[in-house]
Amino acid sequence: VSGSPRPGTVAVCQVAPRLGEVEANLDLLRAEVREAAAAGAELVVLPELATTGYVLTDRAHARALAEPVSGAAAGRSVRALQEVAATCGVAVVCGIAELGDDGETVHNSAVLVDGAGVRATYRKAHLWGREPELFDAGTTPPPVVDLGWARVGVVVCYDLEFPEWVGAAALGGADVLCAPVNWPAADVPAGERPVEMVTVQAAAAVNGMYVAACDRVGREAGVDWVGGSVVAGPDGYPLAVADLSDRPQRLLASVDPARARDKSVGERNDRFGDRRPELY
Amino acid sequence: VSGSPRPGTVAVCQVAPRLGEVEANLDLLRAEVREAAAAGAELVVLPELATTGYVLTDRAHARALAEPVSGAAAGRSVRALQEVAATCGVAVVCGIAELGDDGETVHNSAVLVDGAGVRATYRKAHLWGREPELFDAGTTPPPVVDLGWARVGVVVCYDLEFPEWVGAAALGGADVLCAPVNWPAADVPAGERPVEMVTVQAAAAVNGMYVAACDRVGREAGVDWVGGSVVAGPDGYPLAVADLSDRPQRLLASVDPARARDKSVGERNDRFGDRRPELY
Repeated sequence: VSGSPRPGTVAVCQVAPRLGEVEANLDLLRAEVREAAAAGAELVVLPELATTGYVLTDRAHARALAEPVSGAAAGRSVRALQEVAATCGVAVVCGIAELGDDGETVHNSAVLVDGAGVRATYRKAHLWGREPELFDAGTTPPPVVDLGWARVGVVVCYDLEFPEWVGAAALGGADVLCAPVNWPAADVPAGERPVEMVTVQAAAAVNGMYVAACDRVGREAGVDWVGGSVVAGPDGYPLAVADLSDRPQRLLASVDPARARDKSVGERNDRFGDRRPELY
Repeated sequence: VSGSPRPGTVAVCQVAPRLGEVEANLDLLRAEVREAAAAGAELVVLPELATTGYVLTDRAHARALAEPVSGAAAGRSVRALQEVAATCGVAVVCGIAELGDDGETVHNSAVLVDGAGVRATYRKAHLWGREPELFDAGTTPPPVVDLGWARVGVVVCYDLEFPEWVGAAALGGADVLCAPVNWPAADVPAGERPVEMVTVQAAAAVNGMYVAACDRVGREAGVDWVGGSVVAGPDGYPLAVADLSDRPQRLLASVDPARARDKSVGERNDRFGDRRPELY
């Protein structure tokens, strides 16, 4: 940790990974990180399972593509992400398929890497759809990493729908909660914002923190996506939103850790101080 | 409890109570309940502190207007609300200033009354603004009352911003969470829905239940209101929304308890089953 809290820029890169094409995806992700950094980003968020694609066939498929993330055994994906993060002087949060240290378990994980290496690995705790057939659920809370200029929390997709989990990241000190997601497309009533984005806004509001959700695009094995990446501010209003098209796009948003650390609400209230943990 | 779960109609009556004019407010609220019932409502939600108004001067003012709610000692407000509910054959949720059984404590409460009497009294647990100077915070969880056709939970205003509290009502079996609110007006970015309404939507979505929030209108002691009453469905999308004007208005929405009791999300997920309570 070096430096003190200061405003910075977050990029959310809503790209279109290709199923099973890890090398091509790494090229794509590296290019995105470089471009985001060139645009001024210091924290870059990429989608869930961005290195492998999402619609994996079965556990064997997931395991074949999964890679260790830590130490000398770290796979090519983490090394590539860490290298480009170091070169560009940014922190990167990216969803990957993680092979457990025992070489057996497989996790839908997200890593946070920067010039100092792998700063955190988070294993998705709330699994969606067919994921329980492919992945082992995580059992540890969202990490919160102090980058010096900001503290960054990490969750993955469906985790966002469990307020205790999001709240744990906030109580753990996250200024910015990064959420790699893959939101499958669903019907949305006319004139409404997709409910996944609404849930991100409320998560930001009730916790008084920034939430940066990076969705994906690009139909994969018949699945379309919301394409609803969003960065919400501590007041719950979006700082940047994707246009819900199927095109790749990059959102940039300024975040100020001081705003997230000030949990006051008006003159007399405080989001943390007003909690009644003895009753929960 | 009689009857089995079936669809029904909820009314949210966004009225303009007048500060300190309890008798006039009771006339207004009785008329609203009658009209809502005539329009087909079986459950009628009224605003926070609808009998007294919100901007009370100090604790003496609040205490002077507060009334006991239970048994033979019940004050005129609860008796009036219970009587009109019985006459109309509906259940009514209404915010009132409650005088505690000891004649000392004062609470920002909501009652649920119907033909059977006072079915529940809930004391707001998360106090807003100057309320701690006026009211004693509640210490018991949101009640869930089985009306036969639906199970109804109750919270008040700022409680909605504490997801554990809302979740407690959902886990307690609420099909419809009723929330009398008084949302003070605040700046809203162009094109955005007020964040209080967004938070209601997300509360409905992540818990898979209906949430019916009844706001108020009518400037009071210099305070304006959002006028953002909303009924959100278990998918998080609004079934009815107020138009954010300062005019009184009544929202009607059909609710189906079967939809709230089915916590499945797609074919393989379940909002309750997917929780990881051992980790929270």
